[in-house]
Amino acid sequence: MDQPRIAFIGSGVMGASTAGHLLDAGHSLSVHTRTRSKAEKLLARGATWADSPGEAVAGADVVISIVGYPQDVEQIYLEKGGILDRLDSGCLAIDMTTSSPRLAREIAKQGVGRGIEVLDAPVSGGDKGAREAKLSIMVGGESKAFDRALPILQLLGANIQLQGPPGSGQHTKMCNQIAIASGMVAIGESLAYAKAANLDPETVLLSISSGAAGSWSMSNLVPRALAGDCAPGFYVKHFIKDMGIALRSAEEMSLDLPGLAMAKRLYDQLAANGHEDEGTQALFRMYLEK
Amino acid sequence: MDQPRIAFIGSGVMGASTAGHLLDAGHSLSVHTRTRSKAEKLLARGATWADSPGEAVAGADVVISIVGYPQDVEQIYLEKGGILDRLDSGCLAIDMTTSSPRLAREIAKQGVGRGIEVLDAPVSGGDKGAREAKLSIMVGGESKAFDRALPILQLLGANIQLQGPPGSGQHTKMCNQIAIASGMVAIGESLAYAKAANLDPETVLLSISSGAAGSWSMSNLVPRALAGDCAPGFYVKHFIKDMGIALRSAEEMSLDLPGLAMAKRLYDQLAANGHEDEGTQALFRMYLEK
Repeated sequence: MDQPRIAFIGSGVMGASTAGHLLDAGHSLSVHTRTRSKAEKLLARGATWADSPGEAVAGADVVISIVGYPQDVEQIYLEKGGILDRLDSGCLAIDMTTSSPRLAREIAKQGVGRGIEVLDAPVSGGDKGAREAKLSIMVGGESKAFDRALPILQLLGANIQLQGPPGSGQHTKMCNQIAIASGMVAIGESLAYAKAANLDPETVLLSISSGAAGSWSMSNLVPRALAGDCAPGFYVKHFIKDMGIALRSAEEMSLDLPGLAMAKRLYDQLAANGHEDEGTQALFRMYLEK
Repeated sequence: MDQPRIAFIGSGVMGASTAGHLLDAGHSLSVHTRTRSKAEKLLARGATWADSPGEAVAGADVVISIVGYPQDVEQIYLEKGGILDRLDSGCLAIDMTTSSPRLAREIAKQGVGRGIEVLDAPVSGGDKGAREAKLSIMVGGESKAFDRALPILQLLGANIQLQGPPGSGQHTKMCNQIAIASGMVAIGESLAYAKAANLDPETVLLSISSGAAGSWSMSNLVPRALAGDCAPGFYVKHFIKDMGIALRSAEEMSLDLPGLAMAKRLYDQLAANGHEDEGTQALFRMYLEK
């Protein structure tokens, strides 16, 4: 059987690595991205350029998108001449953007009407996970579409789970971000206390990071913050986007999440102070500098 | 050189294992505990019984205490005929109770006046860490006293850190509990969201627990809660005690910790609903049953 032809929309940090793995595996790739220069490396490796998402998907069997914000997802999928308009019936669309569960359901529903299978498949694992093809991929959609997507997703991730019907991948990503959010506040308050008590935060970390207080964020992000390194692994502005989606989605389900709301307010404040292009560990600097 | 004679005060879950390691290492041990029956196993292994903390420390070189609440620590150390009253000048006292930093400083100060070295040395690692002698021990006090205590502490723990002057061990334990507290809220809200979104929490956990949202609490406590197992690894009532100490201590330092305060309110509610003798993972049941 021929390898499916893949259209790839978006080539930010995550998209570039991801699309690279597909080329490595021998897929023919048509690429569209808002800023063409970001696609040059892929084009140099044999991908073909398309001037629009709609043009990219013409003749493709599968489209994979990983763009910035829900409004970008809405535009590339639902606009006139966009993906759902131009993708052939019988094809498969996989949106890996972290986006709104409600929008994911809407796109899947419109896909059904056009004979297009749609999966929402946001990821976690960051730039490192994308580079090493070790992403966790959280998938929402029909199991038939999931089975069809699996050989492709296995080129990109190490932990691929079908979480439920359309929107469930996005919902699961929200669970992930919610768990991170108050966890960052928890660590921030712990650092603020350490500082107020005249402790040395690095020595405190030696005592607490390997036990019941331990977490990925504590082990990976606190050392960066203590070293004054606020370079983005994950951008403050993107985390704020995700927390906003989670809060709106929770509100739609009449669910009150005060811990998440508190974390969002703190990150909003951090962004307002000019740190939106730093990594999420910048929050710890705010606690340490108070 | 002879092994120092050790007085051991308290034999709850943590104390019993801890004192057992000291016996294993050949120390002669005098033991006092509020409920004598809890000391029987130690007495059967050669420890001698003392009717009071003051009596236990008579003739001892070192006293180690691990009791319940700060008021218990205050009583056994500072009451007339208590530890500081009866312990010989030149001896060493190590309080491993999780207690108030201010009280730890007060006991250390009174110790100086009597020629007694005092360390605060609370632990984390739970009953398992105590049994396996793999506790993390967070020590506050003078470095000379720390060096003297180290051979004993190494019988009990795997991660032993001098964190600073008297009170610093307790302060570090508070950092540990603060990091856990909002972290539990974070996970609880994530589970509440999962439930509201009709996701299967176990499948969500498969996607999120090994990545950036991962933590000791998520990996160790969520599976117990999902299995309906609220047996205490760490009691709700003890966690509430610790959060109370942390909040009071923060207030003394004019430090506002709204995330911790929120966690404390939720655990107070859990206790008011009759769950104070369950493990801290009972909070997750509250979120899942809402």
